[in-house]
Amino acid sequence: MFLYDCYGINDNGNLTIDGVDTAMLAQKYSTPLYVMSESLIRENIRSYKNAIERFYNSNGLVCYASKAFSCKEIYRICKDEGIGIDVVSGGELYTALSVDFDTDKICFHGNSKSIAEITLAIDSGVGRIVADNLTELENIDRIALEKGVTANVMLRVKPGIDAHTHDFIKTGKIDSKFGFALPNGEAFEAVKFCLEHNNIKLVGLHCHIGSQIFDSQPFELAAEVMVQFIKKISDELSYDIKELNLGGGFGIKYTQNDDPKPYVEYMEGVSRALIAECEKLSVATPYIIVEPGRSIVGAAGITLYSVSAVKSIPDICNYVLVDGGMCDNPRYALYQSEYEACVANKAAQEKTEKVTIAGKCCEGGDKIGENMPLQKAESGDIIAVFSTGAYNYSMSSNYNRNPRPAVVMISSNGLDKVIVKGETYEDLIRNDI
Amino acid sequence: MFLYDCYGINDNGNLTIDGVDTAMLAQKYSTPLYVMSESLIRENIRSYKNAIERFYNSNGLVCYASKAFSCKEIYRICKDEGIGIDVVSGGELYTALSVDFDTDKICFHGNSKSIAEITLAIDSGVGRIVADNLTELENIDRIALEKGVTANVMLRVKPGIDAHTHDFIKTGKIDSKFGFALPNGEAFEAVKFCLEHNNIKLVGLHCHIGSQIFDSQPFELAAEVMVQFIKKISDELSYDIKELNLGGGFGIKYTQNDDPKPYVEYMEGVSRALIAECEKLSVATPYIIVEPGRSIVGAAGITLYSVSAVKSIPDICNYVLVDGGMCDNPRYALYQSEYEACVANKAAQEKTEKVTIAGKCCEGGDKIGENMPLQKAESGDIIAVFSTGAYNYSMSSNYNRNPRPAVVMISSNGLDKVIVKGETYEDLIRNDI
Repeated sequence: MFLYDCYGINDNGNLTIDGVDTAMLAQKYSTPLYVMSESLIRENIRSYKNAIERFYNSNGLVCYASKAFSCKEIYRICKDEGIGIDVVSGGELYTALSVDFDTDKICFHGNSKSIAEITLAIDSGVGRIVADNLTELENIDRIALEKGVTANVMLRVKPGIDAHTHDFIKTGKIDSKFGFALPNGEAFEAVKFCLEHNNIKLVGLHCHIGSQIFDSQPFELAAEVMVQFIKKISDELSYDIKELNLGGGFGIKYTQNDDPKPYVEYMEGVSRALIAECEKLSVATPYIIVEPGRSIVGAAGITLYSVSAVKSIPDICNYVLVDGGMCDNPRYALYQSEYEACVANKAAQEKTEKVTIAGKCCEGGDKIGENMPLQKAESGDIIAVFSTGAYNYSMSSNYNRNPRPAVVMISSNGLDKVIVKGETYEDLIRNDI
Repeated sequence: MFLYDCYGINDNGNLTIDGVDTAMLAQKYSTPLYVMSESLIRENIRSYKNAIERFYNSNGLVCYASKAFSCKEIYRICKDEGIGIDVVSGGELYTALSVDFDTDKICFHGNSKSIAEITLAIDSGVGRIVADNLTELENIDRIALEKGVTANVMLRVKPGIDAHTHDFIKTGKIDSKFGFALPNGEAFEAVKFCLEHNNIKLVGLHCHIGSQIFDSQPFELAAEVMVQFIKKISDELSYDIKELNLGGGFGIKYTQNDDPKPYVEYMEGVSRALIAECEKLSVATPYIIVEPGRSIVGAAGITLYSVSAVKSIPDICNYVLVDGGMCDNPRYALYQSEYEACVANKAAQEKTEKVTIAGKCCEGGDKIGENMPLQKAESGDIIAVFSTGAYNYSMSSNYNRNPRPAVVMISSNGLDKVIVKGETYEDLIRNDI
């Protein structure tokens, strides 16, 4: 009935997350409210870890792509599970450092790192700086030289594969702001640059082929292409690339129509493809890194809203107006993303309506979704929107000067606790002069 | 050469705003940075004020639609200019109250006001609550009753006109989350509701027909339709509507291709249409309110970025990578909005390139624009993006945990001052537990 097993219905007919009544949570913390399941987050992390153990002889590391959801507590969980993280800014790195995250297990990404960010990464001893372009490599080498250290660098490579949900293409020309193109020799030149500069240690290669991908085949293809590149580097430059970072992009279920593979199957497919290609080309199997973000936290989160009014426009649609919107979830406005929802306090009832859930921002496009099946809603009801754990809190704004909601975590022991405090009006004007 | 007169080029060949060197500002405050011209803001406000004075016998009020850019300082400027404001949330109202804004001149909008927001509006004596739906009217009446007061209410009416930039249509059915539909009798029922409830005083009607509109004709048409409705209310309910709020939506120049009318012409057209229709129907001309937001602040703001690298993809495009992006300006990602830009420290040079300005967020769609004419840029250059005064700071997020930039105002006396402090990393983790 629900997209994921951590959701259920209790005797009061209310939606539960890890057994906790969501209507009670809305009452206790007020709405809008993000709620997350620690158990599902840990379960997802372990799926990836176990798959690497089982299919790749434990020769790799899961790094949580924290842009999906970044706060102190998620880094604590990653630390506790023994995995690494990927960060994409000084702000994410700063947050991870604030909970003493092991910097050895941090990959620092970004296509446009500032000098200050590169300096912070080097100063804090980040395990792998994933370099995007030649200017950045020059900056890394120069800053490392000034500090008398050697920076561990991976190169972001565009392998010529572009994948999204149901499709992927292999292309020679790549229009992307990220990384060094493989097909035109740019990536090879970047490898040479690293080998010619003393304050850079080239530890590996990185590629990321897309987002919300439902099939393991594009990942397998990317793995093969990257192994071929490792072989070329070995043959032509006599340098052994030890690590291969295959990025993330594994899909999740936003609606019943989505059918991603279990994560273990991605990892099995990728591991097999990698091992086979290495064998074929007589290359040592590299240490691998995978960077799931959305698939760790996405399904583990819901958003609770209160209905302020329901507006029926005959022959057009029913608007269910809620007390949040594009300020806490801009994904419909940005990508027309689809979500499922239910009336949390009527979860046992049938979904007899088709509605537009619209937000409170003064903008026509401020919607959570259109044509969404829902129980009959009325003012005062609580709406739960599913699969909002990724790219909701992290993309939230103060548009219309709405305070950002709190994030509550249902701990593994079944207790609810605030992990990010909700903003107050006072927070909104804190930086106003 | 520039879209607006407050921009120029100094002897160093650098872009200036109100005569102040933008490269110096980037150096002094660091980038990214929002910079705004107080003079242009005040000039825009005065255009509207003067037009009402000249064409409508001063019988009206300009209310700045502060969702375009909300902070303490902008409310101080509005206060100083003697105009009103429109707010769309408790947060905007709270900010205005924090600088002792005259609540009599505040219109409180929103299609999904919470009970807390309605209560705050009533407690603070907001001049006009613009009610959106019947549930809200019930709540207003009940809360006002509890407090022993009468709430001043306007009704948001959907007049059946939908306008955007170059087009407008008149339609009987309106698919919008906002307001009471006029064509199907919903608005008339709402008027009756107000007249039947003692704790509501119906002071006027409101309509808003669209955004970034380049023509005065749809505003004139809306004015006529609303006067006809005022006539109907007078005839059938013997009630005189004293105020008419015609909303905003006046366009600005984002690029040289945009050609909005001078604001004075909108106001002249609307005033004439209004007076003529009132005369025709023997209705007293109402007190009018107009709510410009974008057209007050949009052109008065620029964003300064530093170039971290330039990436050329042969036969595809040149990416100019900057140190901000969709986190401080999500409008390209949301609406594919077009902007003009220049290299601030090479403003006197010719624009010989066509580039994509891409941001630093880990997302392919994170761009400021594509195919933008620009001077030849290189790492370390300062990019200025024009017309970012509206819906940039107000829509900014901490996506990728990037701190939000500071806002610097060039005061009327030509001095630069911070009006919103830039966020620090410490700000980012302030609410993390």
